[in-house]
Amino acid sequence: MSHLPRIGIVTVSDRASRGEYEDRGGPAIQAWLAEVLACAWEPVPRVIADEQPLIESTLRELCDHERCCLVVTTGGTGPARRDVTPEATIAVCDKVLPGFGELMRQVSLTKVPTAILSRQLAGTRGGSLIINLPGQPKAIGECLEAVFPAVPYCIDLLEGPYLTTREERLKAFRPGQKPPATHR
Amino acid sequence: MSHLPRIGIVTVSDRASRGEYEDRGGPAIQAWLAEVLACAWEPVPRVIADEQPLIESTLRELCDHERCCLVVTTGGTGPARRDVTPEATIAVCDKVLPGFGELMRQVSLTKVPTAILSRQLAGTRGGSLIINLPGQPKAIGECLEAVFPAVPYCIDLLEGPYLTTREERLKAFRPGQKPPATHR
Amino acid sequence: MSHLPRIGIVTVSDRASRGEYEDRGGPAIQAWLAEVLACAWEPVPRVIADEQPLIESTLRELCDHERCCLVVTTGGTGPARRDVTPEATIAVCDKVLPGFGELMRQVSLTKVPTAILSRQLAGTRGGSLIINLPGQPKAIGECLEAVFPAVPYCIDLLEGPYLTTREERLKAFRPGQKPPATHR
Repeated sequence: MSHLPRIGIVTVSDRASRGEYEDRGGPAIQAWLAEVLACAWEPVPRVIADEQPLIESTLRELCDHERCCLVVTTGGTGPARRDVTPEATIAVCDKVLPGFGELMRQVSLTKVPTAILSRQLAGTRGGSLIINLPGQPKAIGECLEAVFPAVPYCIDLLEGPYLTTREERLKAFRPGQKPPATHR
Repeated sequence: MSHLPRIGIVTVSDRASRGEYEDRGGPAIQAWLAEVLACAWEPVPRVIADEQPLIESTLRELCDHERCCLVVTTGGTGPARRDVTPEATIAVCDKVLPGFGELMRQVSLTKVPTAILSRQLAGTRGGSLIINLPGQPKAIGECLEAVFPAVPYCIDLLEGPYLTTREERLKAFRPGQKPPATHR
Repeated sequence: MSHLPRIGIVTVSDRASRGEYEDRGGPAIQAWLAEVLACAWEPVPRVIADEQPLIESTLRELCDHERCCLVVTTGGTGPARRDVTPEATIAVCDKVLPGFGELMRQVSLTKVPTAILSRQLAGTRGGSLIINLPGQPKAIGECLEAVFPAVPYCIDLLEGPYLTTREERLKAFRPGQKPPATHR
């Protein structure tokens, strides 16, 4: 098994999983992480249907067997009947971290009033952090920009690998360090 | 049965339900909707006591039998012992949409510091959206102004009727359309 | 039993409870309350380990037997394995008041991006209000400044004692009064 930090990237979409639709969310997450992370890392991608048991088993596999320190999902966070990503995430998490969803909705709300329809959240499963992102590629970047400064320290607290970012691009914050002068 | 979109309006108040107190919340909701909605619609009003089983059965009736695409409640969202509207709402909902409560509290917080005591939330039950509003008539309008731009699209996602608003009064947002230039 | 309002102050920390580490959180809370409250009151302090059953039994004792109208905790709200204060709080509460955690995270987020990792919350148990604060003494004051204006009225609604604050230092808000002109 590789010793590089591994990051699960899960596209949840009925149509993308049937190949009717090109997956744009997963590649958008991978491109964003490639741009921001300074350390070497390994993506572990999955494209699956909007089925709660399948989402749950995929998240468990990525956390427990693939040893991903971070798992990021895209899609399935809305109010429609087939949107069940948050339900699956809550079911596999030990702890829910409400601040992630609050901040992501707040940021998206400056763009579109329908941001309040998103139920995206984050939580921990053992030593892994799971974050739900929206399905729209543009919204993915906005949400990651908002929450990622807290992600490396969260993974430290979960006793995972030490992630580093390209500081001129996005500054990760670890308490004990001086907070960024320009923060918010 | 009428083919007009139906909207349930539920006043939850021990005193109003006993007639000791004139219901001002329900009429405030109805007046606000009459002013904002451009499409024809039909109100389905109820005035009930702060009893959790009664609130639950009223919400179920309005969603399942009266076929309301939207049910709006007023009252019973505070921390007092008799305040149980959020508990009843969670009990009947399939999905909770945390962004509604977050935004309504944020807006009310610009008026009064006690906004954080409100536990108001929104969720879906089958094809219906349920939204808890505070009891104060003034706060009702403030909360509806904040969240209603996202309501018609939410009801689209739930496969309900196509609601339209008087655009010069309040612009509903549906993704794929250009977001309002002046949003927030 | 004293007739003064009693306020429980619970430091949750493995190291402080073993004496390996001086408790700074509990004294910071007590000093803040002494500065802000105008009425006489009595602190009921506890220093305990990060064990969920112990936190639960301490909260129950302070609410039910010590008759504290307010119980404030510090520590154990992060995402790490030993952080279980929110879980214990939810377990003993009748109602969770999500607005407290939302506002405290929002305020902390203006200081440090890692504020979203805090799971702090508030809730009621019978006639008592329980509020989780972060572990860092500096963050304790920031969070109390933000939420305390709503605390005396919350305790009124729970039929507890009438708390008063030194108005020139921090103005408590009770609806029916004129809201502070400078609020936010």
